[in-house]
Amino acid sequence: MSNSPEYEGKAKQLIPTDDRNVVIQRFKNSATAFNGVKKGEFEGKGALNNAISSLLFSKLEAAGVPTHFISWDNATDMRVHRLQIIPLEVVVRNHVAGSLQKRTGLGEGTPLQPSIVETYYKKDELGDPILADTHVFALGILNADELETVKKAALAVNDVIRPVFADAGLKLIDFKLEFGWDSAGRLILGDEISPDTCRIWDAETNTKLDKDVFRHDLAGLIESYSVVAEKLGVDLNNPVEA
Amino acid sequence: MSNSPEYEGKAKQLIPTDDRNVVIQRFKNSATAFNGVKKGEFEGKGALNNAISSLLFSKLEAAGVPTHFISWDNATDMRVHRLQIIPLEVVVRNHVAGSLQKRTGLGEGTPLQPSIVETYYKKDELGDPILADTHVFALGILNADELETVKKAALAVNDVIRPVFADAGLKLIDFKLEFGWDSAGRLILGDEISPDTCRIWDAETNTKLDKDVFRHDLAGLIESYSVVAEKLGVDLNNPVEA
Repeated sequence: MSNSPEYEGKAKQLIPTDDRNVVIQRFKNSATAFNGVKKGEFEGKGALNNAISSLLFSKLEAAGVPTHFISWDNATDMRVHRLQIIPLEVVVRNHVAGSLQKRTGLGEGTPLQPSIVETYYKKDELGDPILADTHVFALGILNADELETVKKAALAVNDVIRPVFADAGLKLIDFKLEFGWDSAGRLILGDEISPDTCRIWDAETNTKLDKDVFRHDLAGLIESYSVVAEKLGVDLNNPVEA
Repeated sequence: MSNSPEYEGKAKQLIPTDDRNVVIQRFKNSATAFNGVKKGEFEGKGALNNAISSLLFSKLEAAGVPTHFISWDNATDMRVHRLQIIPLEVVVRNHVAGSLQKRTGLGEGTPLQPSIVETYYKKDELGDPILADTHVFALGILNADELETVKKAALAVNDVIRPVFADAGLKLIDFKLEFGWDSAGRLILGDEISPDTCRIWDAETNTKLDKDVFRHDLAGLIESYSVVAEKLGVDLNNPVEA
C-alpha cells in the first residue's frame, strides 16, 4: 500500500492504509486564512492540533458521541474511520464573534443563550456561503431528518467539550465541525477540533489563543496554540489517556 | 393634520391621516438598487406600483390573508393600517435567481420544490445580511412562534399571488415581503408587492419584467412594469375591482 496521500487539504492529508475503511489523517504545519489568501508554515502546529484533537475526540467517544477517531498514532498522524464528508461546515457558537458579529452587529463576546448552530456550504468558488435549512434541502445535501441529526450532534459535541475548555480556564467562543457518512451508513463527526477550527479565549483575560492570532497578526501562532495545549493538560507524546 | 411625510423611504413615503391608526402610503417615482448606490427617476413608476400592489393586496384580503391594505385612493396613494414594521425582509422563492444563484451555484430559473422562505436583516449599515432562524431569535426580532407565523403567511401569500401571475402569462420567480404589528397586536403583511419587490418573468420568453431591468440595464423600467400591469389587467385608474 502506497504512503502517498489520497487527499491533500490546506491543513491535513489523508493517507490510505491496508484497511479500505481506515485512513491516516496527517496534520500539516501549514496555516491558511481568508479562503487561502493568507498562508504560513508553523513548525509544530501539526503536532499540537493532532494532540488536542485526539484528546477531544477521545472525550467525545467516552461520552457516547460517535466520531471517526480510532487512535493517536504519532506526532502528526491520527488513525480514523474513512468518512464520505458532506459539503457543510457546521458552526456552533457560544459567544458572538467573526461573521456573526458582522451579520448581526452584536458585540464581540456577547453570550448566546441558547448556543446556535449554523451551516455553511463547503464550496471555495462560492466563498463558503452560509446556508439556511431550506438551502441545504434545495441543494440535496441532507434531508430534514439528517440535518436535525447533524445539528443535535453538533450541540452534543458542545455539551462535552465546552466544559473541558471551561475547566482549563478557557472560553470556547465557537467552533467548526464536519460530518460524513461512515461505511455503515452512519452520519458521524469527522475532521478535527483544534485551535485551527475553534475560537478559544483565555477565560480571565479574553486573550485570543486560536487561528485569529494568525488571521489578524495578534500573536505567535505556536505560542498561542501551546497555551491551549498546556491549559488542557495535553501530553504531546501521549495525548489520549489510556 | 399636516400632509408632510412622517417617514421617507427610498421608494415610498408614509403620510399621517386624522386617524392615528391609518396612514397614506405614497409611491414615489424613484428607483434605487444595490443598497442605494444606483438611482433613477421614472415618471409613472409610483402609479404602476401602487395599482399593481393594490390589486394584489385586495386579492390577498379576499382570500383571507390579512394585510395592511385599506384602499387605493389615487394614482400614487394607498390607504393602509399603520404597522410597526419588523426589521426583516422575508423572501419567498419559487425559482433560483439573484443571491440564491450566487449562494448555491444552482442555475438561474431552476424551479424550487417546495418554494423556500428566507429572512434578511433590514439594516443598511450591515448590508441586509441573510439570517438563519437562530439569528432572528438571537437578535430578539421574533420568537419561534412568531417567525413560524410569518413564514406561513409568506407561503400563503405565494399560494394566492403566484396563480394570479401564472394566469396572466407571468412567472413569479421570487418576491420580498415585510410584516409588522398592527394596533390590535396582529403580525400582518405590510409594504408593497410590485415589480420593485418581485422578480417577474414572461412565462413564454423568460423576459425579465421587474427591477432587474433597472439593476442590470436590460430594458426600460416603465415599459417592463407596464407589460406586467397590462398582463395582469390592471386598470391604473381603478385597480381594485369593486
